[in-house]
Amino acid sequence: MKAIPENIAKAIEEFQKLPGIGQKTAERLVFHLLRKPEADLGQFGKAVSSLKEGIRYCDVCKNLTTEKVCGVCADSSRDPSVICVVEDPLDLIALEKANEYQGVYHVLHGVISPMEGVGPDELAIAELIDRLEKGGVKEVIIALNPSMEGEATAAYLMKYIKPLNIKVTRIARGIPVGGDLEYADSQTLKRALLGRMEY
Amino acid sequence: MKAIPENIAKAIEEFQKLPGIGQKTAERLVFHLLRKPEADLGQFGKAVSSLKEGIRYCDVCKNLTTEKVCGVCADSSRDPSVICVVEDPLDLIALEKANEYQGVYHVLHGVISPMEGVGPDELAIAELIDRLEKGGVKEVIIALNPSMEGEATAAYLMKYIKPLNIKVTRIARGIPVGGDLEYADSQTLKRALLGRMEY
Repeated sequence: MKAIPENIAKAIEEFQKLPGIGQKTAERLVFHLLRKPEADLGQFGKAVSSLKEGIRYCDVCKNLTTEKVCGVCADSSRDPSVICVVEDPLDLIALEKANEYQGVYHVLHGVISPMEGVGPDELAIAELIDRLEKGGVKEVIIALNPSMEGEATAAYLMKYIKPLNIKVTRIARGIPVGGDLEYADSQTLKRALLGRMEY
Repeated sequence: MKAIPENIAKAIEEFQKLPGIGQKTAERLVFHLLRKPEADLGQFGKAVSSLKEGIRYCDVCKNLTTEKVCGVCADSSRDPSVICVVEDPLDLIALEKANEYQGVYHVLHGVISPMEGVGPDELAIAELIDRLEKGGVKEVIIALNPSMEGEATAAYLMKYIKPLNIKVTRIARGIPVGGDLEYADSQTLKRALLGRMEY
């Protein structure tokens, strides 16, 4: 469209490629940026361009890192005998923010999903089993999403972990804090009842 | 947070500065980008960094352009005797997309808003009056938003345009196409009734 300069049209197009960002939102974001000083734009641009620079998977847990071993695994105050299994690094970040967990992680980078052609070999499952077979792990906490794929992956993992005689737990399902019982679905309520704890 | 590499944290921070993008969304966007090839990131980054490169205001209508005169003003098929006054370039883009208007524009770059300290001198109003005083303009279409500030700005403009004996119109208010009469507010319904047209 010749009504707007090429640079602006290009930037709008790039923002539109992001998930959940349609044309109107992309336009709004770009016109917001147009009101910022050039230095701010340079900083944002560089943050995107160099996003993947030096990023690799942690040798131990497959979390994203710039070192051989990620920040959590390298932290000597963390307990390496408890491993929390998550689907992706965003879940790890969410758990870290809860500021409650003192163990380490293992990032699978997905869940088993035959519909999307993701089998166990596409995930960091063999690496997890290797880690467990080396010994020293007392508990594996499965923190996968309560989806069909998450449950299937958990079941698959159980098959390999059980024979190693390691305790396997999973994070509680129930009413979210601030959530409303009235609006909770029946599966969640069922899990909340089954997982009830004594006062 | 040392759970994620510095580059990633930096990019999340930059995305969070955008309007309407909170931490969770910023994280989701950045992790989406992490799955893209470096080349795509470079392209996005460059689009942001160079967004304002060479961008200036059109000498005639104050639209954004990289030339002395914007694409619309430079288009000889457009009718320069009809000027549509808009608040900002996004409104111009929206009108251009409707693919109905054949005249030219004037971009005010805001509306009069005493609450936000925006007076007539902060806007491209003097430039509009100059343009009109040069003659050759038959109609001014006011296409400002139907907010209190938009109405006040329209009233201010009228005061200066009326003495020039130029026809001033404003775009119709009414029920949006696809909109539901039942959910329209009473002011909109009132305007829709007053602006009724014969079949």
